[in-house]
Amino acid sequence: MSGTVLPSWNDGVARKAVVDFVTSAVTPGGGFVEIADRIAAFDNDGTLWSEQPLPPQFDFVFRKWGDEVAADHALAAVQPYKALVEKDNAFFARVGAQDPEVIETLLAAFARSWAGTTPAEFEAQVREWLEAVKQPKFDVPYVELVYAPMLELIKYLKDNDFRVFVCSGGGRDFMRVFAEETWGIYKENVIGTAADYSYSNGSMVRAARGLGGLDIGPGKPEHIFATTGRLPVFAGGNADVDIEMLETATFALLVDHDDDEREFAYTSNAEKSVERAKELGWTIVSVKDDWKTVFPSK
Amino acid sequence: MSGTVLPSWNDGVARKAVVDFVTSAVTPGGGFVEIADRIAAFDNDGTLWSEQPLPPQFDFVFRKWGDEVAADHALAAVQPYKALVEKDNAFFARVGAQDPEVIETLLAAFARSWAGTTPAEFEAQVREWLEAVKQPKFDVPYVELVYAPMLELIKYLKDNDFRVFVCSGGGRDFMRVFAEETWGIYKENVIGTAADYSYSNGSMVRAARGLGGLDIGPGKPEHIFATTGRLPVFAGGNADVDIEMLETATFALLVDHDDDEREFAYTSNAEKSVERAKELGWTIVSVKDDWKTVFPSK
Repeated sequence: MSGTVLPSWNDGVARKAVVDFVTSAVTPGGGFVEIADRIAAFDNDGTLWSEQPLPPQFDFVFRKWGDEVAADHALAAVQPYKALVEKDNAFFARVGAQDPEVIETLLAAFARSWAGTTPAEFEAQVREWLEAVKQPKFDVPYVELVYAPMLELIKYLKDNDFRVFVCSGGGRDFMRVFAEETWGIYKENVIGTAADYSYSNGSMVRAARGLGGLDIGPGKPEHIFATTGRLPVFAGGNADVDIEMLETATFALLVDHDDDEREFAYTSNAEKSVERAKELGWTIVSVKDDWKTVFPSK
Repeated sequence: MSGTVLPSWNDGVARKAVVDFVTSAVTPGGGFVEIADRIAAFDNDGTLWSEQPLPPQFDFVFRKWGDEVAADHALAAVQPYKALVEKDNAFFARVGAQDPEVIETLLAAFARSWAGTTPAEFEAQVREWLEAVKQPKFDVPYVELVYAPMLELIKYLKDNDFRVFVCSGGGRDFMRVFAEETWGIYKENVIGTAADYSYSNGSMVRAARGLGGLDIGPGKPEHIFATTGRLPVFAGGNADVDIEMLETATFALLVDHDDDEREFAYTSNAEKSVERAKELGWTIVSVKDDWKTVFPSK
């Protein structure tokens, strides 16, 4: 069996920990987990796909804001458009560090940019971006930079009767556009920061307000509970904003980006999560050592 | 095939319409529905179980409020406790008619009653009520008054690769307690009016605020879209507050309560939905004529 599951994972401590946990969860005995309770939750940016130099959704959003500034130059004087025009990446990096001032500014701008949009219109915009835009380092569409070993892990969990959810700080509706074809995960299993929608006279349109809070930090278990009525048994993340989600799980996996050759090497905004992983015995996955391949072969 | 599916349904227009629609949805051709799109949504009160003389959750809530009034007599002077003490059922009937003043009063009281409760504490209270309390007309626990033909319909849809959701104006967390054993539907497929929860220091506790709006009227498609990223292909309801949900579906089914002998006969708060059903060609299900049995045999 170990030869057929997780083929992109090197034999090692991380792979063994995953297989041992799942085997124990489905085998009668002390580690057995009832099928109804088998909920797995994964962060997206940096856990399921590359998030450097910035999470891909920023590329989509920045293009939209670029168009808005071009149409109304006055916007260039106010945040977050100012940071964009001035290429002030330090401003955007403060999102990962959960700086409330930056986050509030960004959320207000997101809300304005798509308020009044129907789901079909929003999906069309995301699809256009998915097909047209390439990631700067690898020169391929962003969705090709999903991690092959994590796709295998999702499949392995599903094959063992886990219901797998993606739970990202990024946009719920953004991820839902490609969730089914990319991850094999139905839209209803995608949890993320979300705008509220209003229905009237046969139409659903995006409102300028959020539905629930930002899906990072404590927001992750809050969103997972709201969606599923449970907390996850298995969770995977890679950053400080994933700590609370990982703490709620029986089995926690933390991706350590240490492979500058095949992907990126960085520890920013993940320092606390590595400490917490050591304290609580989470499974740390080294991209360099634990993954035979990083991206799916075409 | 028609002999093995929906056995509690009489052969008739309603049963034929359901079977024809589902058969067409899974058969290559003009009526085919992609598996990913096969979302079905059902109201609960009056659609999946008896809602007379009042939706069962009111029984649970009224007992809690009764305890609160006993502990603090001053509450008896303010709504909604006043209406409860004075047995002013007209006040509570205004919920079904979506009277904003009544709804706001009730929601504020719900929020106060369970704010600070953990999911496990809330579940224990609901379980105690489920086991101890009996419905006044039938003298059995409320969950025994789920409709056998609708359980068969849920199973029939699931057997045809529909993902079935319950979408009720009632409480999400209330229904989730019995969803799996009663309907065979995982908690994550239960949509309802919900309180927000806050996570901190390893604990999830109920907040005194709602998450999203009330799940009635336009709130139903809004909640279904938020949960699933889609609108339903198949929807079932029985009341005016279900109209918007039914309008969004390709196939809409409306339960008509016309059987005072085996259940209840009433049209209150369903008048507009019957009109809309006739206008739009929805399938009307007569409890009296279309169902061989109403409740599951024990």
